[in-house]
Amino acid sequence: MNTLTVNLLLTGDELMAGDIVDSNSAMVAHVLSEAGLNINKKVTVGDSLAMLVEEIQSLTKSGDILIINGGLGPTIDDLTAQALATAAGLEISQHAEALTHLTKWAIKRGTELNEPNLKQTMLPKGCGIIPNKNGSAVGFSLTLNNCDVFCTPGVPKELKVMLKEEIMPVLKRGLPPTYFHNIEKLQLFGLGESSIQRLIDDNIKAWPKQLELGFRAALPTLELKVTCFQESDRLLQQQWIGKLKSLFKDHIVGSGNAHLVQTLVEQAAACKKKITTAESCTGGLIASLLTQISGSSEVFEAGFVTYSNLQKQKMLDVQESTLTAHGAVSQPTVTEMLKGALEKSGADLGVAVSGIAGPSGGSEEKPVGTVWLAWGSLDDIKTECLYYPFERKHFQQYVAYTCIDLLRRELLGLTTVPDYLETRRLSRHQ
Amino acid sequence: MNTLTVNLLLTGDELMAGDIVDSNSAMVAHVLSEAGLNINKKVTVGDSLAMLVEEIQSLTKSGDILIINGGLGPTIDDLTAQALATAAGLEISQHAEALTHLTKWAIKRGTELNEPNLKQTMLPKGCGIIPNKNGSAVGFSLTLNNCDVFCTPGVPKELKVMLKEEIMPVLKRGLPPTYFHNIEKLQLFGLGESSIQRLIDDNIKAWPKQLELGFRAALPTLELKVTCFQESDRLLQQQWIGKLKSLFKDHIVGSGNAHLVQTLVEQAAACKKKITTAESCTGGLIASLLTQISGSSEVFEAGFVTYSNLQKQKMLDVQESTLTAHGAVSQPTVTEMLKGALEKSGADLGVAVSGIAGPSGGSEEKPVGTVWLAWGSLDDIKTECLYYPFERKHFQQYVAYTCIDLLRRELLGLTTVPDYLETRRLSRHQ
Repeated sequence: MNTLTVNLLLTGDELMAGDIVDSNSAMVAHVLSEAGLNINKKVTVGDSLAMLVEEIQSLTKSGDILIINGGLGPTIDDLTAQALATAAGLEISQHAEALTHLTKWAIKRGTELNEPNLKQTMLPKGCGIIPNKNGSAVGFSLTLNNCDVFCTPGVPKELKVMLKEEIMPVLKRGLPPTYFHNIEKLQLFGLGESSIQRLIDDNIKAWPKQLELGFRAALPTLELKVTCFQESDRLLQQQWIGKLKSLFKDHIVGSGNAHLVQTLVEQAAACKKKITTAESCTGGLIASLLTQISGSSEVFEAGFVTYSNLQKQKMLDVQESTLTAHGAVSQPTVTEMLKGALEKSGADLGVAVSGIAGPSGGSEEKPVGTVWLAWGSLDDIKTECLYYPFERKHFQQYVAYTCIDLLRRELLGLTTVPDYLETRRLSRHQ
Repeated sequence: MNTLTVNLLLTGDELMAGDIVDSNSAMVAHVLSEAGLNINKKVTVGDSLAMLVEEIQSLTKSGDILIINGGLGPTIDDLTAQALATAAGLEISQHAEALTHLTKWAIKRGTELNEPNLKQTMLPKGCGIIPNKNGSAVGFSLTLNNCDVFCTPGVPKELKVMLKEEIMPVLKRGLPPTYFHNIEKLQLFGLGESSIQRLIDDNIKAWPKQLELGFRAALPTLELKVTCFQESDRLLQQQWIGKLKSLFKDHIVGSGNAHLVQTLVEQAAACKKKITTAESCTGGLIASLLTQISGSSEVFEAGFVTYSNLQKQKMLDVQESTLTAHGAVSQPTVTEMLKGALEKSGADLGVAVSGIAGPSGGSEEKPVGTVWLAWGSLDDIKTECLYYPFERKHFQQYVAYTCIDLLRRELLGLTTVPDYLETRRLSRHQ
């Protein structure tokens, strides 16, 4: 379906040495896909001038667009400008616009330009500048072998803004006027990819050829993407989006780029409800996820991280007898934790968690991965014991996002049972 | 410095569409690096026979080793066997050893071989088989253009075992007996890449040719890597590691793979000190980072997330008059927050933060990005006002890691002032 052949060249010894996982190219592919474009070929090389020059020459000959990522930094192993200049037979010189950008950037950050910074203004003569809102390295572009080359920074957030705001508008202008595509997305929480695939296979017999269906893990949600390529297919697209909605029901967090945590914060703000958290095994992660959202101060005032039994008593008034009789990872304990947090904070709604994140601390009755959750309001506390036998950090993330989804469901007044409360219940695994 | 040129070819439409992040190639690179080998060039293409054949031909001509990953599965878009056969001018035929492997695999799982499974036994005539302990797809290898080609499965855990147990022993036999490499690493916090580069340029005049120096952003730390390639250079390597240590002093968190937060948790555990947190603008992130570390329950019992003024009073006994007179983002407020947290939790050491994460809430006197920190123990509370004018999530991360580094320095009894307390002080920016 592409009307432009887009190649991607990534550079950096750290990519070749396995020191970092390349998440940039998936992001580039994702941003391109919103305009209906795919990556044709992706090449990654280390910080070698000769290899970079060779790849730039080869990839500009085999595509309409070449996006180069990385190698714009201030150190000697940042070679992109030199490589592109060499490939294009141009000189490197100080670029006035790049110098202005860098000077402004330094003033804004309250630092001074140093010699390595100034290296970032040395660019192929005559290239265009691509503004970088978030960093020191300006992007730059030129045309070589009839291919438009865009050089972009390796820092993900700088790359993302530059791609979306600067490069994509240019690429879109290069698409033929008859070109059409429209993407509709749904964000799902609490169903795995294979469950989703099975539900679709079992319930949707003949998917129409005019629509492309795609999945993407957009953690913590899973994104379903339905694309059409003709204006006249948009009604059909709406109909099939409707079918997917009836199939996945309240596992759907929202449309478009809806974000699970943001959705919860917005819902709570809309109905003027305050949320509190009482966390043991997640250690502040739920509070941290909520407060990452701008505007969360409207709905979140207090969070209690009670990692030890003593602090559960001191901070949340959990009874010593409860802890002695049932243990910290138990229904009575999380119930008392939630009560304490709601009473002390005055919040309307809250969640309490106590579990065994591991790697140690498990028993036969309560293995590593066990977690008790309590959620709701003072007059309606619900509890559940789930089992996430994952590595510590993953366990904490799954538990935290599950709590956030349970609060979302609570605020919506949903009475249906989400898939994960069925499949993840500890009792099913014993 | 490699003695074998290793290329990597990845295949899969899902990699090109941005639907998944490629973590396999970092794993391959990491496994190779343990034997001192780097990847020379990495190419990723979609499920296109023509492109695969072209890349196999080109990459076998430019390297000693080609590892192909993906495309071994049972579906029609799995094209690796066909592509390698075509590139090598060989026929595809049923491979007896592959059939034996697959039959055993099916018996073990209690299933029967179906048509798609049998496709996985159709391999280039005469190729060698690479056992797959964890899956149905056997790997296979052959020599083309004087290059050893290894075809591996896309499923990460299958790939990992096949690489480590089957392929690496073969590669190592290909290394000359004199081959040697040794990597030493230092983890730094609180100095940017360009400051590090400048310090090195200014202070280390002639870096020895025998040693390779590399950087890597291993957030939140920055990793310095010094590699030597002769047993006889190890003393030199030690000497220059020593020079780097004297240059970067207490910005060095540790050697090897030392992790900032883990280092703090281990230090606190070693001297039996308990830590507490009182967080406003970081909203639980510091507590969350600490409790991500296995074993943190030894040093962390209680964290207070006091996002509103009222909760600062209720949970931490901050005086209303202090908040009225100085505001929430002020030296007196963070001092009282820290006192409250230390007194209530009984911890030895703590940190309190209150700042303006933005995007709204700033003023001329206290712009977005301002943060007051208090850290230390009840008898020795230090405070500082820093300025991190970054996007909300980044602001929170910088502040949280800064707090963790300040606690690390406190536990070590360091009296020197880290670079960021100089460069990030709000007063320098006004």
